[in-house]
Amino acid sequence: MKIGVLGTGIVGRTIGTRLVGLGHQVTMGSRTPDNPAAAEWAAGIGAGASYGTFADAGAGADLFFNCTLGTASIDALGAVGADRLGGKVVVDVSNPLDFSKGMPPSLWVCNTDSLGEQIQRAFPDALVVKTLNTMNCEVMVDPSRVPGDHDVFVSGNDGGAKDQVRQLLGSFGWNADRVIDLGDITTSRGPEMYLPLWLELYGALGTGTLNIKVVR
Amino acid sequence: MKIGVLGTGIVGRTIGTRLVGLGHQVTMGSRTPDNPAAAEWAAGIGAGASYGTFADAGAGADLFFNCTLGTASIDALGAVGADRLGGKVVVDVSNPLDFSKGMPPSLWVCNTDSLGEQIQRAFPDALVVKTLNTMNCEVMVDPSRVPGDHDVFVSGNDGGAKDQVRQLLGSFGWNADRVIDLGDITTSRGPEMYLPLWLELYGALGTGTLNIKVVR
Repeated sequence: MKIGVLGTGIVGRTIGTRLVGLGHQVTMGSRTPDNPAAAEWAAGIGAGASYGTFADAGAGADLFFNCTLGTASIDALGAVGADRLGGKVVVDVSNPLDFSKGMPPSLWVCNTDSLGEQIQRAFPDALVVKTLNTMNCEVMVDPSRVPGDHDVFVSGNDGGAKDQVRQLLGSFGWNADRVIDLGDITTSRGPEMYLPLWLELYGALGTGTLNIKVVR
Repeated sequence: MKIGVLGTGIVGRTIGTRLVGLGHQVTMGSRTPDNPAAAEWAAGIGAGASYGTFADAGAGADLFFNCTLGTASIDALGAVGADRLGGKVVVDVSNPLDFSKGMPPSLWVCNTDSLGEQIQRAFPDALVVKTLNTMNCEVMVDPSRVPGDHDVFVSGNDGGAKDQVRQLLGSFGWNADRVIDLGDITTSRGPEMYLPLWLELYGALGTGTLNIKVVR
């Protein structure tokens, strides 16, 4: 697939690298055409990796990964262009973390709304699927980094889009029975509101290489 | 121990029954001296179980369980009396769930504050420990209801109080290595903000007999 990865931070680079490794063609998008992190990433990967503006990442893309900071996500997707997002799966791994008031970060949207819903409302023709936001990016693309069984959530309004995301998650190494479909995009609230607990666990346990398993 | 259980709902009755079974003397407190649910509970249990007002539950109590609705918790503890709470462990299992706007409930405090913190601020001499609020009451008092390993969190400012709570949790069946100390009472935010995800999991999986295991 031709995949646009939005965001040049560690999350975007890690997911982009994994996708190229799986044979996809990835264009990493940022605000500027010459983002140094994106250029360095693409040069390091070689074939299958390119970079440019958000609009460049959107040109001809079959699917998108939103790996921007939550505060920048709507603008980034707007720069891709609503027309290019229409009918396409937007895998949203971002979190609405607000670092402006110091640590620990709070959420700038939660409880009665979520970033996943905001993105879906801003781009009603996109097929937004919230997933993978409940763990660090090393675990996202290689669940074996955490031993044993643990889970990933998906939230979205479109069943076909969620099926596509399940396939991608499977290619990352996620067993199908560890992918929990929470429901429509409003269920983004739960996984996003889990972040404060994740941050507390990171602090208490001294590692971010962790995840949760739902036991029943 | 002499334990005051505040609240006559399913959580209070289930915890009260478990505590009596473990040999504690439990007084179940409510707003009125003759709450029918409390009277029926005490009659069904017999020796070790009594009931009365919140103040009655506070008289001579060594430790408290706050099992009231989150919306009623501060008032209930106020009716116990700040003097009776001073220096005593208050095990807070409540959640700030707001059902007034329909299902699913939202939280009426979260993100930059928590109910655990509100209670601690309202009763600064009490030793508040937030715990057990991340699961239903059947699992709280008998973790074997969920197969295999899964976790319970504790948050509180007083190390000795948390040790007392660890002992109580152990008597309920929680293995010491499944009790995760998140830190001070401000870390109540994480477990309280997990509730929306718990509710989504309940909906998606069709059972509330579930819990999470932190894997690392």
